[in-house]
Amino acid sequence: MAVNIAAVPGAVCAPRGFSVGTAMAGIRQAPRDDLLLLVSETPCTVGATFTTNLLSAWCVQHNRARVNGTPHLHGIVVNAGNANCSNGEQGREADRRFVAVAETRLATLIPALKVPRLLSASTGVIGRHFPIEKAEAALAHLALHRDGERAARAIMTTDTRPKATARRITTSQQEFFIGGIAKGAGMIAPNMATMLGFITTDIALDAAVLQPIVSRVVARTFNRITVDGDTSTNDMVVVFANGSSGVLGKAGSEEIEAFELALNEVCTELAKAIARDGEGATKLVTITLRHPPAGGEQIAMTIANSPLVKTACHGNDPNWGRIVAAAGRAGVSFDPRRVVVTLAGHEVFRDGEPTSFDPGVVSAAMRVEELPITLDFLDEKVAGRESITVWTCDFTEEYIRVNADYTT
Amino acid sequence: MAVNIAAVPGAVCAPRGFSVGTAMAGIRQAPRDDLLLLVSETPCTVGATFTTNLLSAWCVQHNRARVNGTPHLHGIVVNAGNANCSNGEQGREADRRFVAVAETRLATLIPALKVPRLLSASTGVIGRHFPIEKAEAALAHLALHRDGERAARAIMTTDTRPKATARRITTSQQEFFIGGIAKGAGMIAPNMATMLGFITTDIALDAAVLQPIVSRVVARTFNRITVDGDTSTNDMVVVFANGSSGVLGKAGSEEIEAFELALNEVCTELAKAIARDGEGATKLVTITLRHPPAGGEQIAMTIANSPLVKTACHGNDPNWGRIVAAAGRAGVSFDPRRVVVTLAGHEVFRDGEPTSFDPGVVSAAMRVEELPITLDFLDEKVAGRESITVWTCDFTEEYIRVNADYTT
Repeated sequence: MAVNIAAVPGAVCAPRGFSVGTAMAGIRQAPRDDLLLLVSETPCTVGATFTTNLLSAWCVQHNRARVNGTPHLHGIVVNAGNANCSNGEQGREADRRFVAVAETRLATLIPALKVPRLLSASTGVIGRHFPIEKAEAALAHLALHRDGERAARAIMTTDTRPKATARRITTSQQEFFIGGIAKGAGMIAPNMATMLGFITTDIALDAAVLQPIVSRVVARTFNRITVDGDTSTNDMVVVFANGSSGVLGKAGSEEIEAFELALNEVCTELAKAIARDGEGATKLVTITLRHPPAGGEQIAMTIANSPLVKTACHGNDPNWGRIVAAAGRAGVSFDPRRVVVTLAGHEVFRDGEPTSFDPGVVSAAMRVEELPITLDFLDEKVAGRESITVWTCDFTEEYIRVNADYTT
Repeated sequence: MAVNIAAVPGAVCAPRGFSVGTAMAGIRQAPRDDLLLLVSETPCTVGATFTTNLLSAWCVQHNRARVNGTPHLHGIVVNAGNANCSNGEQGREADRRFVAVAETRLATLIPALKVPRLLSASTGVIGRHFPIEKAEAALAHLALHRDGERAARAIMTTDTRPKATARRITTSQQEFFIGGIAKGAGMIAPNMATMLGFITTDIALDAAVLQPIVSRVVARTFNRITVDGDTSTNDMVVVFANGSSGVLGKAGSEEIEAFELALNEVCTELAKAIARDGEGATKLVTITLRHPPAGGEQIAMTIANSPLVKTACHGNDPNWGRIVAAAGRAGVSFDPRRVVVTLAGHEVFRDGEPTSFDPGVVSAAMRVEELPITLDFLDEKVAGRESITVWTCDFTEEYIRVNADYTT
C-alpha cells in the first residue's frame, strides 16, 4: 500500500480550512491565554467521546445534544480555569451564553458561515461561579490565526507543556491532514474519553463512518493512560472533519484505512504526552502485556494505577513484587508463575521467583525518562493473541504538593 | 440484655490461656523484635480469612491447608521483615521449617501440648531469600510471657505505632474475653482480609459457628479500610478460640451475640488504627454513606482510594468536587443532584451545587486528626436502608518518600 504518514507542524491548523482564536480572558488567575476558539471555514462532521462520570459538566451535557442534534458543526469554544460543573442554573445558562456569544463573534469573523454552530468545553475547578462576562469580553475582540501550538497552550491548566501534533497522509492518489491538541495532567483515568482532546482533519467523512473510528482509536489511546485513577467530569475528545482536502473517506477505502492509522498515531502521541506530563511526574511509564488473558486491560490498568508501583518507578526501585502483586489483585484469573516480568529491559521475575538480576544494574537502567515494564503471559491455556499497552507516570512528592491545596 | 462490653488491657493475652513469645531474630534490619509466637495452652478452633491476591505467600498457601486439615490449632508463628513470597522452593521449605521448629520449641515450653499445631505468617519484602537459620536461632531461646502489647510491636514493619486492644464481655451469667493485635501501614486494600490481624478469645466456639462470624465482621471492618488500594500477598486475619473461660458460645445464644458485637468492636478499633497509621498519614478520614444505593461500598471505596480526595484531605482543602466526582465514577448508578456532602461537619454540596459555605471556615474545621466526610443519598428510588462506613488516611509527601525506595 502506497500510504505515507509523516509528522508535520501546525497542530490543529495543519489540515486545510481550520483556524483558531486565542485570548487572555482572565478566567484563570495566571496572566496567560485561557480561551480558545477552534473553527473550520466549512461545516464539519464530528465524532466524539465524552466522560462516563455520572457527574458531568454543563458543556458535556449540552455537547451530547449538540452533536446528535446538528448534522454539521463549525468548531468548539474552550475555556481553561473553570470547569463550569456543579454550579447550578447559572452554570447551565453560562454555557449556553458562552456558545451563543462565540457563535455571534464567529459569524462576524467568517460571514460566509451565516449560522455557525459550536460545541463548548471547560476545564478547571468544579463548582465555581462561571465568569461569563470575562469570556464575553474576550470573545468580543477575538481574532483568528493559524498558530495551532498556541491553541494547545490556551487550554492548559496544571499542564507544564503544551500537547500538539499533526500528520500528513499521502495515499497513491490523495493527500490530507490530521492535527490534534490535548490537555490534561491530573484527574486522568480510563473508562472514558479522558481529558480534552481536539482533533481536526480535512478529509471528508460521514459521521456514521467517523464515530466508530473515533471510538475505537480513543479506546486504545486516550483511554489507556492514567495519572491517578481519577476521572474528570469534563472530559471529551472531539474530531472535526471538514472535507477541505477534497478527499472523500469512503468506508473500506485506502484513505479511510490510512486515516485510522494516522488518527491512532496522533492520539497515541497526545495520550503519551499527557501521561508524561502527569502532575509531578518525572518519567513516562509504558506497561505492555504480551498475550494477556481476557481482561488484560484490567491487569494493565491495575498496575498502572498502583501507588506502590508508581512510587517504585519514581525511586528507581526494581521492586517487581509490587508489579506482580498488583497484577494478582486485578480480578482476572491467571497463574502468576507463568508470567515473566521485564523491567527497563532486564528480566526480573520468571517461574514464580526473581531471576538473579543485579538490583544496582536494574536500578541504574530505570533512571530514564521513558521506563518500559513488560509482562509476558506464557500460560497457553489463557493467553490471548494481542498485546496491550497502557501509559502512566511515576508518583512523586510533587503530585502531593500540586494537589494538596488546589482550591484554597 | 444484660451484656456489658468493656475495654481492658492485655491485647491478645487478655483472654485466659494465651501467651506470647517475642524475639529479635535479625530478619528485619533494625535491632528490634521481629518474631512472634502466639500460643494457647489448650487447643483452639480457628476462623480465618486470607488474601484474595492470586499471588500469595507460602504462609497463606500452607495456612489454608492447615486450617482445613487440622481440627485444633495452638497458635501462630510470625516474622516481620520478609514476606517469604515468590522466592521459589527455598521459601516453601523455609515456611515448613519455620512452623516445624516453632512447634518443636513449643512442645518444650508447654510439654502438656504433646503435638502442637501452628499456623505461620510473614510480612515484609516480596521475593527475598527467607533467612530460616535466623528464625531457628531465635526460636531456640524463645520464652513465653503475657505482654500482649509487646506482641503487637513484634509484628510491625513500616507501622509507626503498635495496634492492640481487648474487651471483657459480661453477659447475665458469664464472662469471657477477646483480644487482638494487628499490623499494616502500606499495601492496604479491600476485597480481602487486609494485613495481619490476630485475635484471641477464651470463649468456646465450634469452627462452624466461628467462621461465618469472622467472615461477617472482617467484611465490615478490616475490608473497609484502605491506604493505597494495593492488596498484599500475605494478608490474613485469624481468630483463635480456646474455650478457657468455660463459656460455650452456642449458635443463637446471648453469649454468641455478645461475642460478635465485641469482635466487631475489636476489629473496628484495629482497622481504624491501621488506616490512621497509613504510610505517611497525618489524619484518619472516615467516609460514611447514609442510605446509599446497592453498590454503595464501591462508591465509598472509590472516594477513599482517590488520590485527589486524599491529597485534598491532607491540604485541608474543602474540594468537595473531587469527592462527588469520585463517587460519580464508581460505576454505581445514582443522581449526583440528590446527594448532600458534609465535610468536617459543614454541608458543602446540595442540589447539584455548592452551598454558600465559607472555604476558610471549612478548611479550618478540616485541620483535625479524625476527618469525617458524609454523603447522604436522598433519592428514595435507589436509597438503601443501611449506612456504610469506610476508613482511609490522607495522602502525603511522606507516603512517596516511604515507598520510593523500599527495597534498594
